[in-house]
Amino acid sequence: MIKIIAFGYFKNNNLKPIFLEYEKRIKRYLKIELIEIKEIPIKKTQNINTILLKEENILLDILKKENFVYLLSEHGKEFDSIKFKEKLYSHINNSQKVTFVLGSAHGFSKSMLKKYPKISLSEMTFPHLLARVMLIEQIYRAVTINQNIKYHK
Amino acid sequence: MIKIIAFGYFKNNNLKPIFLEYEKRIKRYLKIELIEIKEIPIKKTQNINTILLKEENILLDILKKENFVYLLSEHGKEFDSIKFKEKLYSHINNSQKVTFVLGSAHGFSKSMLKKYPKISLSEMTFPHLLARVMLIEQIYRAVTINQNIKYHK
Repeated sequence: MIKIIAFGYFKNNNLKPIFLEYEKRIKRYLKIELIEIKEIPIKKTQNINTILLKEENILLDILKKENFVYLLSEHGKEFDSIKFKEKLYSHINNSQKVTFVLGSAHGFSKSMLKKYPKISLSEMTFPHLLARVMLIEQIYRAVTINQNIKYHK
Repeated sequence: MIKIIAFGYFKNNNLKPIFLEYEKRIKRYLKIELIEIKEIPIKKTQNINTILLKEENILLDILKKENFVYLLSEHGKEFDSIKFKEKLYSHINNSQKVTFVLGSAHGFSKSMLKKYPKISLSEMTFPHLLARVMLIEQIYRAVTINQNIKYHK
């Protein structure tokens, strides 16, 4: 079972059907679920740390039941697709639920970054909806590697 | 002037409108052009090196007039978005044309990889149409950094 937790909603974004297509393909082999969390609107009187702490409280409440949590962060450890597959399947092969968390546009609070291991998709910064697609594509790629399914680069 | 040279066609892929949206936004500030090259179909009798050499011949013919060429390759140097912006604008600020080349599903021939500098979007392998979107998003992000345009993460 894989959970992706992310701030914001796809709504009618063109990236949505691409995400859903990968999700559908993954579901032939693994359970996967996207949980979208409402973004906290920025008020002029608030600084980013205040928002990050509110987001932290929301996330900690959701994550308290999860044992294997990874934050997606450009400050995290980089994996190539093979090593990402090994990491993911080290949990799946032990029937462990894995949870990936994509931060809001502000990233994560310092205490979140300390509390959980971090995976980086790239040194570059990508928009959060595109990062979701990049993540689910890598999960699908991991499935194809594990199942020995032909899948183009 | 920025050129993106890539194998294969978007056709009706859902990534196409996303690419076009970034292209439109970039065009307010810079000239940019996508050149799509027909992929060489794989025959059972051909090995990948044969295809890579055919692709190399096609690319060298296109690239012979270009002075600042970068191959997008997972074996390349990684940049964060700020450093990528600096690299890109080091050319633009000198009125130099920059050409980015995305390989086919087979990557690049060894001699291509030796001939040109390489930039990596990620250690992970992504499908080539998604890599195009990742590249043009980074070019747009570079524009927003350079023009000090507000742009979300």
